[in-house]
Amino acid sequence: MPKAVNIGASLDAVAQTWAPKVIGQVNDQYVKVAKLHGELMWHKHDEEDELFWVIQGHLKIELEGQGTVHLRPGEFFVVPKGTMHNPVADDECWIVLIETVSTKHTGDVVTERTRSIEEQLS
Amino acid sequence: MPKAVNIGASLDAVAQTWAPKVIGQVNDQYVKVAKLHGELMWHKHDEEDELFWVIQGHLKIELEGQGTVHLRPGEFFVVPKGTMHNPVADDECWIVLIETVSTKHTGDVVTERTRSIEEQLS
Repeated sequence: MPKAVNIGASLDAVAQTWAPKVIGQVNDQYVKVAKLHGELMWHKHDEEDELFWVIQGHLKIELEGQGTVHLRPGEFFVVPKGTMHNPVADDECWIVLIETVSTKHTGDVVTERTRSIEEQLS
Repeated sequence: MPKAVNIGASLDAVAQTWAPKVIGQVNDQYVKVAKLHGELMWHKHDEEDELFWVIQGHLKIELEGQGTVHLRPGEFFVVPKGTMHNPVADDECWIVLIETVSTKHTGDVVTERTRSIEEQLS
């Protein structure tokens, strides 16, 4: 029997910050949840937009040459493909991400914080 | 200066039920808001999944041969492509939809309630 996905419960189950988890797919896009705290890193996705939707807390998305977008619960922002960006959460922030199934976590920048798609699907 | 999209404010601005409005785009998917009340109609989208996310109220999605999915605020469901479905809201319900830019409102069924993509973008 098909059933709904509960976003709050999915976020409750996330143990680590900066470790997105896939909770659904619509066409060629994954729906993911993540907990953020601190600063990720500057990166871009050359071919893919990335949607950030805040569920709880306050997220800043720094955009190269364009200032900072502030997101509060119930607000979203789409980082256009090719745009250098850096997500920053001064306090823990819970978000939904929507991005193409092929999108790499930190673009072409790879550090110990980078999560593979396999990790995001596990 | 880029800014966030507020989903509640976008929904407040929707005057009619069953008239989705595009409020964003991520890759080849539109993000839409809609107010629902009553029953739409049975239809399907042969090539496209459709994501329903409830913001306020209670939505039932009847699925041919698979029963009914109940959605409450903070829950979503993806109707797989090719699945006959019928959204029903006994009381007014506010939702976000995510679907491919080419998706037709009521699939191949067209009635006076069908909204064109031009209407959804206006």
